[in-house]
Amino acid sequence: MVDAVIRKTQVALGMSSYSFVKFCPRCGSPVEYKEKFGVVRPVCPQCNYIHFQDPKVAAAVLIEEDSRVLLVQRANEPFRGLWTLPAGFVNGGEDPAEAAARECLEETGLTVQIKQVYDVISGREHERGADFIIVYVAEVLSGTMAPADDADAVEWFERNNLPPLAFKATQKVLIA
Amino acid sequence: MVDAVIRKTQVALGMSSYSFVKFCPRCGSPVEYKEKFGVVRPVCPQCNYIHFQDPKVAAAVLIEEDSRVLLVQRANEPFRGLWTLPAGFVNGGEDPAEAAARECLEETGLTVQIKQVYDVISGREHERGADFIIVYVAEVLSGTMAPADDADAVEWFERNNLPPLAFKATQKVLIA
Repeated sequence: MVDAVIRKTQVALGMSSYSFVKFCPRCGSPVEYKEKFGVVRPVCPQCNYIHFQDPKVAAAVLIEEDSRVLLVQRANEPFRGLWTLPAGFVNGGEDPAEAAARECLEETGLTVQIKQVYDVISGREHERGADFIIVYVAEVLSGTMAPADDADAVEWFERNNLPPLAFKATQKVLIA
Repeated sequence: MVDAVIRKTQVALGMSSYSFVKFCPRCGSPVEYKEKFGVVRPVCPQCNYIHFQDPKVAAAVLIEEDSRVLLVQRANEPFRGLWTLPAGFVNGGEDPAEAAARECLEETGLTVQIKQVYDVISGREHERGADFIIVYVAEVLSGTMAPADDADAVEWFERNNLPPLAFKATQKVLIA
């Protein structure tokens, strides 16, 4: 019964198993699942903690020069070997624009300036993926291009001659 | 010592006390704080759970008709009595555009269509606030204007005759 409620809740929230809460992170007591503020949430019967499941957010950079776009080849699953925008997760408390620039530096060796928001694309594409991704237009300021971290390669591609792309969000930005 | 590390971590992450993790939400064991993926995070010595602190995200609507903008008067602290865009928190797994429309309906009685992303504004303004807010341009589709939920009033204002505004983010959208 409780398991059924939890499963229903997870589906409703788009929660994957890793975000599953059985114990109160504040006092360690087993939690109960109750409707709070319009959603069934984990609540602690001991200390009254309410767990608000925050979204998992990614940030990406769209960098274009002379009709070419900068892409990285994924070093990890899912979609290992396919190409995508430099991107990564936004930490709690981090400016998502700074997160996008940080991830770009980590993956490509290039320091960029964020210019503006391009789009926010919603939809978790795999269990460990983001709930939505914020895509920023950016320009290269400095640095020497070299893949690292989650990237096996980094290259410029003509917009009309793109490699196999990872993620629907990447395809939406570059093709749709 | 541990408390000092935790405080330093909270500051680094912009974490407020409510997001403070002392116990593993998966198995209930006391957590330790260790550097994982570039940030000091709560980790469980029993089940190896790593707590990734996700951002707290809000979504708002910017609705303009005939040089007037739709604002709500806040029913709750902080900034009770001041005016802001219809807005609220994005739940984990929720499309932020749908969250913005949902919050607008809850607060104003108006069903809106989200048109495009206007901006993403970063910076937590109070302890229970969002880390960043996604502002969408929207249009009214239907409904009868009536304040509810977090709003004490809902009104149209001329852009050159705005009421006292809550939040720097609201001021940035409407004045800057």
